[in-house]
Amino acid sequence: MAPSHASFSSSIHQHLIERYRAVRDLTVRLCDPLSVEDMTVQVQPCASPTKWHLAHTTWFYETFILCEHENNFAPYSEGFCELFNSYYQGIGPQHPRAWRGVLTRPGLGEVMAYRDVVDDRITALLGSRLSERVLEHIRELLMLGLNHEQQHQELLLTDIKLLFNTNPLKPAYRDDLESADAAAPAPCDHGWRQFDGGIVEMGHAGEGFAYDNEGPRHRRFLEPFEIAQRPVSNAEYLAFVNDGGYRRHELWLYAGWTWVNEGHAHPIYWCKSAAGEWQEFTLGGMRPLDLSAPVSHVNFFEADAYARWAEARLPTEVEWEHAASTMPVRGNFVESGRLHPGTAANDDGDTGSFFGSAWEWTRSAHEPYPGYSPPAGAIGEYNGKFMCGSFVLRGGSCLTSESHIRLTYRNFFDPAAQWQCTGLRLARSLR
Amino acid sequence: MAPSHASFSSSIHQHLIERYRAVRDLTVRLCDPLSVEDMTVQVQPCASPTKWHLAHTTWFYETFILCEHENNFAPYSEGFCELFNSYYQGIGPQHPRAWRGVLTRPGLGEVMAYRDVVDDRITALLGSRLSERVLEHIRELLMLGLNHEQQHQELLLTDIKLLFNTNPLKPAYRDDLESADAAAPAPCDHGWRQFDGGIVEMGHAGEGFAYDNEGPRHRRFLEPFEIAQRPVSNAEYLAFVNDGGYRRHELWLYAGWTWVNEGHAHPIYWCKSAAGEWQEFTLGGMRPLDLSAPVSHVNFFEADAYARWAEARLPTEVEWEHAASTMPVRGNFVESGRLHPGTAANDDGDTGSFFGSAWEWTRSAHEPYPGYSPPAGAIGEYNGKFMCGSFVLRGGSCLTSESHIRLTYRNFFDPAAQWQCTGLRLARSLR
Amino acid sequence: MAPSHASFSSSIHQHLIERYRAVRDLTVRLCDPLSVEDMTVQVQPCASPTKWHLAHTTWFYETFILCEHENNFAPYSEGFCELFNSYYQGIGPQHPRAWRGVLTRPGLGEVMAYRDVVDDRITALLGSRLSERVLEHIRELLMLGLNHEQQHQELLLTDIKLLFNTNPLKPAYRDDLESADAAAPAPCDHGWRQFDGGIVEMGHAGEGFAYDNEGPRHRRFLEPFEIAQRPVSNAEYLAFVNDGGYRRHELWLYAGWTWVNEGHAHPIYWCKSAAGEWQEFTLGGMRPLDLSAPVSHVNFFEADAYARWAEARLPTEVEWEHAASTMPVRGNFVESGRLHPGTAANDDGDTGSFFGSAWEWTRSAHEPYPGYSPPAGAIGEYNGKFMCGSFVLRGGSCLTSESHIRLTYRNFFDPAAQWQCTGLRLARSLR
Amino acid sequence: MAPSHASFSSSIHQHLIERYRAVRDLTVRLCDPLSVEDMTVQVQPCASPTKWHLAHTTWFYETFILCEHENNFAPYSEGFCELFNSYYQGIGPQHPRAWRGVLTRPGLGEVMAYRDVVDDRITALLGSRLSERVLEHIRELLMLGLNHEQQHQELLLTDIKLLFNTNPLKPAYRDDLESADAAAPAPCDHGWRQFDGGIVEMGHAGEGFAYDNEGPRHRRFLEPFEIAQRPVSNAEYLAFVNDGGYRRHELWLYAGWTWVNEGHAHPIYWCKSAAGEWQEFTLGGMRPLDLSAPVSHVNFFEADAYARWAEARLPTEVEWEHAASTMPVRGNFVESGRLHPGTAANDDGDTGSFFGSAWEWTRSAHEPYPGYSPPAGAIGEYNGKFMCGSFVLRGGSCLTSESHIRLTYRNFFDPAAQWQCTGLRLARSLR
Repeated sequence: MAPSHASFSSSIHQHLIERYRAVRDLTVRLCDPLSVEDMTVQVQPCASPTKWHLAHTTWFYETFILCEHENNFAPYSEGFCELFNSYYQGIGPQHPRAWRGVLTRPGLGEVMAYRDVVDDRITALLGSRLSERVLEHIRELLMLGLNHEQQHQELLLTDIKLLFNTNPLKPAYRDDLESADAAAPAPCDHGWRQFDGGIVEMGHAGEGFAYDNEGPRHRRFLEPFEIAQRPVSNAEYLAFVNDGGYRRHELWLYAGWTWVNEGHAHPIYWCKSAAGEWQEFTLGGMRPLDLSAPVSHVNFFEADAYARWAEARLPTEVEWEHAASTMPVRGNFVESGRLHPGTAANDDGDTGSFFGSAWEWTRSAHEPYPGYSPPAGAIGEYNGKFMCGSFVLRGGSCLTSESHIRLTYRNFFDPAAQWQCTGLRLARSLR
Repeated sequence: MAPSHASFSSSIHQHLIERYRAVRDLTVRLCDPLSVEDMTVQVQPCASPTKWHLAHTTWFYETFILCEHENNFAPYSEGFCELFNSYYQGIGPQHPRAWRGVLTRPGLGEVMAYRDVVDDRITALLGSRLSERVLEHIRELLMLGLNHEQQHQELLLTDIKLLFNTNPLKPAYRDDLESADAAAPAPCDHGWRQFDGGIVEMGHAGEGFAYDNEGPRHRRFLEPFEIAQRPVSNAEYLAFVNDGGYRRHELWLYAGWTWVNEGHAHPIYWCKSAAGEWQEFTLGGMRPLDLSAPVSHVNFFEADAYARWAEARLPTEVEWEHAASTMPVRGNFVESGRLHPGTAANDDGDTGSFFGSAWEWTRSAHEPYPGYSPPAGAIGEYNGKFMCGSFVLRGGSCLTSESHIRLTYRNFFDPAAQWQCTGLRLARSLR
Repeated sequence: MAPSHASFSSSIHQHLIERYRAVRDLTVRLCDPLSVEDMTVQVQPCASPTKWHLAHTTWFYETFILCEHENNFAPYSEGFCELFNSYYQGIGPQHPRAWRGVLTRPGLGEVMAYRDVVDDRITALLGSRLSERVLEHIRELLMLGLNHEQQHQELLLTDIKLLFNTNPLKPAYRDDLESADAAAPAPCDHGWRQFDGGIVEMGHAGEGFAYDNEGPRHRRFLEPFEIAQRPVSNAEYLAFVNDGGYRRHELWLYAGWTWVNEGHAHPIYWCKSAAGEWQEFTLGGMRPLDLSAPVSHVNFFEADAYARWAEARLPTEVEWEHAASTMPVRGNFVESGRLHPGTAANDDGDTGSFFGSAWEWTRSAHEPYPGYSPPAGAIGEYNGKFMCGSFVLRGGSCLTSESHIRLTYRNFFDPAAQWQCTGLRLARSLR
Repeated sequence: MAPSHASFSSSIHQHLIERYRAVRDLTVRLCDPLSVEDMTVQVQPCASPTKWHLAHTTWFYETFILCEHENNFAPYSEGFCELFNSYYQGIGPQHPRAWRGVLTRPGLGEVMAYRDVVDDRITALLGSRLSERVLEHIRELLMLGLNHEQQHQELLLTDIKLLFNTNPLKPAYRDDLESADAAAPAPCDHGWRQFDGGIVEMGHAGEGFAYDNEGPRHRRFLEPFEIAQRPVSNAEYLAFVNDGGYRRHELWLYAGWTWVNEGHAHPIYWCKSAAGEWQEFTLGGMRPLDLSAPVSHVNFFEADAYARWAEARLPTEVEWEHAASTMPVRGNFVESGRLHPGTAANDDGDTGSFFGSAWEWTRSAHEPYPGYSPPAGAIGEYNGKFMCGSFVLRGGSCLTSESHIRLTYRNFFDPAAQWQCTGLRLARSLR
């Protein structure tokens, strides 16, 4: 006997509720090592307080799901509508981004209560009788909301890292993080892989969640190229630093050279100990620089300059996606608990992974794919309006959830951004 | 039988310990209504986090008393020396003022533990056997430290007020503050008092604590003048606002007009309700503007422009001190618990007080008195190096401790500063 | 009898000398309407003084041709090497860009003398006996230098326009410029042209001068699209303005909306007369807005927002080049003497030109073509290091020399740049 | 027989005309060494183009004299009213100060024609039949206008000096200026002069022109002090520099130390030659530092820090005026043609002059004297609205006209201002 529609639907409901709870729980668990103070402060306009992440991700479900689908919807708090709206002009005014840190009220307790109430209401909605059409619509919005929250989980960690690095006491987010494996073998050779080019397809299509900017799937023409099997390591980047990389104008883009001359001479989290040893600030505190690990927290300018120094270039995103398309989406993600790039076994070592450890800068500006149009309404502001001035990153990092990443994923940041866990992989044209 | 030296000294010791505990306790009590979040954030570079005030005032005793007079002194924490040094170059480097808000670590608990340990060590030192000369030196430094902490108590409140006003939720510091007395009579007439001028003396001399910038006592020549018996009221200032005071260039100093054109049209804490009624943000939250109370939170530019509009001028500090010299140092201080300027009975109503409610701007730049020289060492940085660019305020406010204020007290702030509880009194030349 | 090598070479020499003189003369003729004062001042960091353009273009020949190929080369003036170096780090230090306007010395006379001497030396070099290889090398550098000077001719005019518009007297560069033809017919319909897509070629190849960023010629895959036959007109852009285009956030990129909120409500050179009529500042002074002319001096943000309002989009540069590839390179260039976009006969009216009148913004970031590598040495800084943050413009303008433009030409500017003569053409995806 | 009223008045007229012509001529003569370019550019917001000085001084007579007293007055040019209004809100809007340099139109020729016409009209007015009352009023305004123009003559020279110093070519204003007398004896000892203090009078009274801020004359009480006979020399200031004066925080005011840390290590016009010799940029170009000359172009912070280093202090302005009151107003003024501070014979050498060579910073903020009130109308904006934030300077400089200076003259500048010809003299309290 075929399962009744009700029980089928119910199992979807149940699955959604479980997925929802898993993501929501992780956000809270990531706060465990933090004090109330840590969760309150905004260290720079680009970074947000942990408490704001906790509230904003909640606001997202309330605004885009409950508001439309809950009977007799009333907002949890009138004030929160504006306080926790990030940038959705279509929803209404926003508390200014640079002022998120002044919101000592609502307190953390109130924000957690907000989370609980919205969780209950979302769970109740998911458990209620819904038409198939409505359920599907809610499912889509929920998937978006959960992926959105996963992005904020990563931001929560990078924002805390930036905050702690600014504190002269250099506190650790966690004292129990695994150290680098001193016995780890030096990275293998780049292991260049050649590709002939021709017409290829790129972008998302079919079932499964993806952001709007990953589609539509479309054709591109690729000229022959080769790409490294593995990302650039700290040892290699250190050679660039030691070779005067930050003092040689010919290696830098014009805007990058301007940035260097604001006083940069190495990656943001590197610093030399009193004894002259290179150290790196990590979520586990200050540690000796792990030479065999992929370089991280370099911005686009640094990645681009390194590639030029290495007589190579950054891959375009179509090259990256084409080369990665046969690789498993496997690597050093947040689930590994390492919270730092490194040569973990699941980095696949010599066989080369394109995923995890550190996001990889591409040479491609964040532009719309042919035929792209954003969804209708405020949700259309998610990615579309940011298609100007930033560059695409691929592959996820040690702070990304494994369930969040995929081959076609397009992350994007300003070329000067350093506070994300970002590295690079080399490519070369073959003609 | 005359009291033995020991017991006499011991009573001094005891008195100092009691005074110390009283001031220290008040600081902590002022934090009672605050959450950990409230105590962490720095809203503007001019304001400091409550937690920083708690630590810095403690650092002051440790640095200027324990360091010199404690046997086998060791700092409580190496890191704190820099974190909680405000501006004493002679002591060592300072954590940048504008970055006090990033110090989520040390946490509040650690700062309170720091207070406890230093309190114990100070108390032990005061209870120990000391030569008269050393005791006197310690007593002087302790008086300075306690007055210093009292200044920070006032800053703690004005900084919190600024923070809360920046929050769209407009939280109250305390919900139980006394409201304005709606039945309060309108302020009396200005009650001009005439003075003939001639040679007068001003400045501190003799026993009793005073800051270095209050001395030496010296002679001045005063031309004839008159001065109002009471400060300018909100009702009067509102008439200035309604008369286009912020749109009439001829009323403002050049620098003041530049400031106005940055977008100011009324005192910082005034705002109009949706119904068009003037309200004022107070430590008790948003309240109807109390028309009979002294105007407060106006800066020097606003005070100067108002005086010009009223066909008068600000008094010089010598005029103010001369006029106030026969008045009792009595008024609406922090002990009243009102935490807002107002026509409390102890304002002396019509008889006119020069003290309490709101600091009064004078027309005098903060300059050294003839013969002034700062104390030797880092302590000499307390006031002397700030004798440039600010104007003198007199009389204390509703946020000042009564034991902190005196006739010769010279407070000083930048002419654009609005966040202190500052008002004005009118004066006129008589020739 | 075949022509001797000498006479053949001599005719090349002669041709180069004539070409050189023609370009050099035009620069000087463009200065005819200017006073010495006009030629001295730098109105914004993006713009340069006319006198600096006169000197820098001269410096270019001296630095890249004479320095290498002249016997016993000595610089005309040691000081000029730095003063007139724009951004060539490989040559040496540069006088800061924002400070070009303080150079009242050397005076205009000295700069003209510098031009004369370098002209004589270049002419002498071209007239001298040179090996074929050297001649070819010099010819290539000369072509680059002449194209470089043609770019500066256009900048000279846009910089002067910006300067004059900043002057409350709104002076005209020339009083005798042709006015808009009031009887001109309204622009034809957009005349959408469809393209099927597929593999196309783009970029420069073969003989004839082109900048390095135009190559190498390579293949692209195009999805089906359509593109308008003509650019957007002032009448159409005015409808966008009147429809609240600058107040509707949903039409703008995030960075564009930030820019709008700095206080922009219409194109930079538009202003309303006292009588409420739209006017436009032109090189002929303030004039009624010519509704039938192509809109100009809109930046990328404005062009992008307009296209969204019109339910279309900007073309990519590959779409633009593909669509324009069968069109003649003909239009309203600087030779027409109109110095303003307009429906001149040689705009080809309804048949649609892709060239002249106003540069057209594309949706494409200025990125390297596959296989691109800049030339060796300082000359490689010409374009390569600017491949970050700007967008590509195509087709030339009424201020461009006809001999300067071609199908594959890639101009590029910052998305906020308004002072160039820039408009747009609409495109749409066909799927 | 007594002279008729007519001829008496006529001689006043004649005297005024001569005085007017003399001042007007000097302004033009000061431009002789300048090119049109030099006269056009504004190097910093604090400095104005020479052409603007030429026009603004003319506008002053037109606005404050012709406008009121000429029959059928019509402005020379509607546009000039705003372009050349400096800061008189009571007259109308002003072209922004920082944008004076964009005014390439009107050209220099037009400005000179403006001067000629206004000169003719002023001369005609002075030559016309006027009532005694009107003549007196015009005379007062003319005196103000001429003194105003003399101030701008000094600014013209300091602004040009700043412009030329910014030019890497370091051009000289004049090549024929007298060099320092290498055989000049080192300055004498400070020659401290003691004063007993007591009641003294200060400020202007009686006949003769003075600015409003110099009055009213009034009494002050002075404590005993001593003051140096001569200003601080370059040799002495160099000792301060060599003693680490710019690296020792304890010597500086808080605001001064902030200023030092923006990157200052010596006076603005000092620079070390390649050979390590100290040089100074002068209106005669770069020259070896004249050790025996008074130090100049130090700001208030530098003057104050030097005095502290020398275990002295700056005099207050009442001390300065009292000490100088018996000295002749004689010294190295602009008439000497040296255009640089120095030990000229007319500096009175050892006998000590208080006038000429370099303005002397006092410790006194620019505050109103008791009983001060500005004149009615826009002319009241001349000094009164600037009584905030600046410090008083006394005694004139080598760029001041002798007929412009007097004992009671109060110049004032921002404490950070370096571009005026400013030095210092030491004082000490005697108690």
